[in-house]
Amino acid sequence: MGRKTKGKKVRDKPTFTTPVPTQWVGPISFKGPIVDGEISVPLATYESPLWPSTARGAGVSRHCGGIQVTMVDERMTRSIVVKARNAAEAHAAWQAIEAQHDTVADIIATTSRFARLIKLNRQIAGNLLFIRIECATGDASGHNMVTKAAEAVLDWVLSERPELSYSSISGNFCTDKKTSAVNGILGRGKYMIAEIEIPEKMLRRILRTSAQQIVDLNHEKNFVGGNLAGSLRSANAHFANMLLAFYLATGQDAANIIEGSQGMVHAEARGNDLYFSCTLPNLIMGSVGAGKGNDVIEDNLREMGCKEEREPGDNARRLAGICAGVVLCGELSLLAAQTNPGELVRTHMELER
Amino acid sequence: MGRKTKGKKVRDKPTFTTPVPTQWVGPISFKGPIVDGEISVPLATYESPLWPSTARGAGVSRHCGGIQVTMVDERMTRSIVVKARNAAEAHAAWQAIEAQHDTVADIIATTSRFARLIKLNRQIAGNLLFIRIECATGDASGHNMVTKAAEAVLDWVLSERPELSYSSISGNFCTDKKTSAVNGILGRGKYMIAEIEIPEKMLRRILRTSAQQIVDLNHEKNFVGGNLAGSLRSANAHFANMLLAFYLATGQDAANIIEGSQGMVHAEARGNDLYFSCTLPNLIMGSVGAGKGNDVIEDNLREMGCKEEREPGDNARRLAGICAGVVLCGELSLLAAQTNPGELVRTHMELER
Amino acid sequence: MGRKTKGKKVRDKPTFTTPVPTQWVGPISFKGPIVDGEISVPLATYESPLWPSTARGAGVSRHCGGIQVTMVDERMTRSIVVKARNAAEAHAAWQAIEAQHDTVADIIATTSRFARLIKLNRQIAGNLLFIRIECATGDASGHNMVTKAAEAVLDWVLSERPELSYSSISGNFCTDKKTSAVNGILGRGKYMIAEIEIPEKMLRRILRTSAQQIVDLNHEKNFVGGNLAGSLRSANAHFANMLLAFYLATGQDAANIIEGSQGMVHAEARGNDLYFSCTLPNLIMGSVGAGKGNDVIEDNLREMGCKEEREPGDNARRLAGICAGVVLCGELSLLAAQTNPGELVRTHMELER
Amino acid sequence: MGRKTKGKKVRDKPTFTTPVPTQWVGPISFKGPIVDGEISVPLATYESPLWPSTARGAGVSRHCGGIQVTMVDERMTRSIVVKARNAAEAHAAWQAIEAQHDTVADIIATTSRFARLIKLNRQIAGNLLFIRIECATGDASGHNMVTKAAEAVLDWVLSERPELSYSSISGNFCTDKKTSAVNGILGRGKYMIAEIEIPEKMLRRILRTSAQQIVDLNHEKNFVGGNLAGSLRSANAHFANMLLAFYLATGQDAANIIEGSQGMVHAEARGNDLYFSCTLPNLIMGSVGAGKGNDVIEDNLREMGCKEEREPGDNARRLAGICAGVVLCGELSLLAAQTNPGELVRTHMELER
Repeated sequence: MGRKTKGKKVRDKPTFTTPVPTQWVGPISFKGPIVDGEISVPLATYESPLWPSTARGAGVSRHCGGIQVTMVDERMTRSIVVKARNAAEAHAAWQAIEAQHDTVADIIATTSRFARLIKLNRQIAGNLLFIRIECATGDASGHNMVTKAAEAVLDWVLSERPELSYSSISGNFCTDKKTSAVNGILGRGKYMIAEIEIPEKMLRRILRTSAQQIVDLNHEKNFVGGNLAGSLRSANAHFANMLLAFYLATGQDAANIIEGSQGMVHAEARGNDLYFSCTLPNLIMGSVGAGKGNDVIEDNLREMGCKEEREPGDNARRLAGICAGVVLCGELSLLAAQTNPGELVRTHMELER
Repeated sequence: MGRKTKGKKVRDKPTFTTPVPTQWVGPISFKGPIVDGEISVPLATYESPLWPSTARGAGVSRHCGGIQVTMVDERMTRSIVVKARNAAEAHAAWQAIEAQHDTVADIIATTSRFARLIKLNRQIAGNLLFIRIECATGDASGHNMVTKAAEAVLDWVLSERPELSYSSISGNFCTDKKTSAVNGILGRGKYMIAEIEIPEKMLRRILRTSAQQIVDLNHEKNFVGGNLAGSLRSANAHFANMLLAFYLATGQDAANIIEGSQGMVHAEARGNDLYFSCTLPNLIMGSVGAGKGNDVIEDNLREMGCKEEREPGDNARRLAGICAGVVLCGELSLLAAQTNPGELVRTHMELER
Repeated sequence: MGRKTKGKKVRDKPTFTTPVPTQWVGPISFKGPIVDGEISVPLATYESPLWPSTARGAGVSRHCGGIQVTMVDERMTRSIVVKARNAAEAHAAWQAIEAQHDTVADIIATTSRFARLIKLNRQIAGNLLFIRIECATGDASGHNMVTKAAEAVLDWVLSERPELSYSSISGNFCTDKKTSAVNGILGRGKYMIAEIEIPEKMLRRILRTSAQQIVDLNHEKNFVGGNLAGSLRSANAHFANMLLAFYLATGQDAANIIEGSQGMVHAEARGNDLYFSCTLPNLIMGSVGAGKGNDVIEDNLREMGCKEEREPGDNARRLAGICAGVVLCGELSLLAAQTNPGELVRTHMELER
Repeated sequence: MGRKTKGKKVRDKPTFTTPVPTQWVGPISFKGPIVDGEISVPLATYESPLWPSTARGAGVSRHCGGIQVTMVDERMTRSIVVKARNAAEAHAAWQAIEAQHDTVADIIATTSRFARLIKLNRQIAGNLLFIRIECATGDASGHNMVTKAAEAVLDWVLSERPELSYSSISGNFCTDKKTSAVNGILGRGKYMIAEIEIPEKMLRRILRTSAQQIVDLNHEKNFVGGNLAGSLRSANAHFANMLLAFYLATGQDAANIIEGSQGMVHAEARGNDLYFSCTLPNLIMGSVGAGKGNDVIEDNLREMGCKEEREPGDNARRLAGICAGVVLCGELSLLAAQTNPGELVRTHMELER
């Protein structure tokens, strides 16, 4: 039997599953208000060397007092675009809309139980007005929530201001699943920082490296090399690998690793000890929503304590905090390996045998 | 039983699988030397609306003579970094290495049956020399192949030129799984273009839109909006969604959707008909290698005709061509939906019910 | 006689002047609240073809009802950097500072007669806290004003929060005279839009082109070409040329053309007429301050009506409005020339004879 | 008397000059094949504190054995755009053109005494083919030379391949006077590196700083701060200031400071001594051409030994080498000042009195 979708008959094709190999890695040791204690994490990936590599970082976390996670911000966004006759009209419209912040907030609040307006931002290019709607979205990553909110705002804008016309419900000033600077600067998803201090002895014993070697490599590879590559707000070795594996294992929309990957390592030698941090300004992550209706994923979330009775948003924050810690473990381990000539290839070959 | 990895005992944790919902979509109609005829494609995703949306684009392809795919380039890269005393020394080293292109090619050829040097590129920053090694890698996406090649070249460079010292086996001028400009400009992965001409009648009937509406939306959203967002070499709505789903279903390293997402739509109104193209300069894709050892994935590849007896590289090219077509189908469908106020949200809500 | 500067004896070397060829171009016709009427403009440049080219655009402005200028925003910025022990501390410090917005505003108000705090923005990377101080600066471009404001805020921050230590008075999140996305997204300088509607007849007669040709060229060259080049928030042909010439002739700090050049053309065919706009989000410009103590420059400013008795800031706004108009004239003229094969080279050769 | 330009009568308005305050600074001490010995440099700027600041860096150069300059590459570029029916056709055209490299070289050689083809690069976006023509241009910066070369190539391409049509003589893949990544990656202008080693004693005595302070500031401000700002291939404090002043004093097209500013500082602590380098991949610079016909400028160039009888190109290389040294002096001085809280503002206020 078929069903009508968008004017075209689509046969209900059978749904099957693609099995992505998964292991529990860790436990990782955490400390701080967002996530605390030892937690093992599921990583779903076709690249099996990621498991022992992340596990090595987890070992460091357990031996060095844990990874501390800080959340700096959180919001989900969608930008609409409308067209005026000219810039003066677009600007006047913007000023009027901004002045009605509370009305916009009310409109958004009617579209969902959780969506709450945080802020409106704008860009005007000629006669085009882009309005970036930034919302809190509870425990959901919030893609659909902000789209619905955006549609309601758009309808209101167009009815209030007949001089404006529709251009798009989504104007890429959001921006979803595309590299950008706006997400880091204005915020999109959870802005998380994971950090740890590693004594010299542990650097040597577990990671076979030194603080200065990591600091130099981070500068020369992640910053200088990234700069030469024309990278944008990215200075890391492979955040994307850990993000993908954790996103798949927790039912996230993994295409959001694109903005997720735009983060940075900052490391300092503190005497012979190492301060090591991963800053992830755009972790789009939810503990409820599409992708979560699956038993394996529900179990994974529950196992990590992200399905508890908590204030709305707290489970998602915990999940994002754990994710930031996973990224730190994998990043630290790979960077340490790259400080030693030959180690990377040797390890990969061993692991893939 | 355990095994020793990097100085730390890792218990052999059990491997299980995360099931990602998957459907066959299509068939998509293709034409041209890389891929021809009607081919259905598997899409593994937690975002089920992607299936009917891509299917709608596939319908367009069948009614409009097929999607034509062109391959402009292919290569896989890894950049090493070495340190000289100063720039003069770094530059002299580079000149000497470049002059020994054939020696480097021979060294690389010994590291794998398929890796073949295409070109060396360089950047010098102060006393740091980055050498980008660009290789053909047969049917593999080639991550490990170029890493092995890079290690061999690095060893040779360091032994030939004792004035240089090791900085990193991978210097982010490669660059893997991070946003950049270098991959688009110098090439990484397969540079694919998928395109189609759609008569006015089909635009109206299947997509409920017009050529001018798509052209305007592409300009205002993908280009103007993307520009305002500070996007880098990206002008599309959601290439990443299709890439992720096709990558997962075909055993690719899906973290490479990061560079994959940096592509562009170019559309033209040809009278009332629409010329619509998706340019994907960085499709990293293989028909063999890690992630392919799985029955579901092997079947998927075989079903699409990407496990045939062919010249090395031809199966991977076919696969990349199909992938580019999938991206076009999904992109076209979403853009068309966004030309109609209200359609996007309405469709999503229907599909998720 | 010498004077001691920074531990080193610097002879008072004689100051002479480098003469930059200058012409008055126009008049340009303006309309709207910021600048109205016909105004000629001085352009100082070694590239003499810029004069007739801009003059051609000025002619268009006079025949088509004038260029309308809109100001969307204005502010000047400096970002300080301080170092905490870790991100939690950096974040707590930020929250405390933000909560004392009024105190910060008071501190800034003591440093200058004109500097007024508009907003504080922040980024946290690991343990580093960047605070972007955004101020109104009256008629001055405000470089020194915000630096003094930043120093006062920095002193206060460090004395209030002894857990923080000094990293830099200027942390490049400002950002001055460097390409960036932050200036466009958070604002720096005056955000100006200049626009005009040109009837088909004038397009043909003065510019020998058509609306569709300009629209297509803008898309293919400024947007598609710029995108391929890895441009960042730039989509124009040569904003920089007009900016440089006008900046030099009005005593601006012309190194700010770097952020100034990051602007965009947006054009639409309205029937056979052309809507043409130049969006300049980062025009850093003052009618007082360094560079203005020179007779030629004072005369230039006075001639354009930018030294009148007005509310603080109004002379600078008028100047920025005129500048945006100049950019539009030059950009329109060059783009029109490029729609005709051969015209660009032919014209240059004639003009340089 | 008037003359006809582009269909519009332009009155020959009188040309006057804008006087830009200028001082000779230095001498700077250089060593190496491109420029050697002590050379004073003229800096034309409205920002007078630049003189003593750069002079301080010059003092360092004289006390530390001189600045060494290395040239890594040089070329000038223009990209044309042509339109095919589809990507297959565009790609076939590109392959045919690339195969006729010698023909293209011959065509270019007829357009000028100095222009010589180095390389053709391409991008294809849908049906649009961008060809980047890269030439040697002798002692000229080469803007006009490559434009003429591009026109000749374009004419030939269009006559050889009637399936292609004209889009633009300049397609922004060049790219001139706009921020980009392509110029750094493929080359445009002279790729210069200036570097120096500074003993601890001189760091303390002349610059009141230490190696580690400079290294940390460079990382935290230029790299981390720049990254957060969404900078693109830029990691410096104020390259643009020195570039502008030197460009104006030597008759360059100063709008090219936009690409010029996209460079990087790399610094290393070598024990307690400092290795400090400025990498400038895009110094567009000529010792002949527009802007040079002025006595003051001719004298400036002659004084620095850049009007000698030399092989074509050598005077321009020397000039670019001197420019890179000037940038290093100013950058070093400002960074050193910023390592000391309060010094920047205090010095500026003293100097502007």
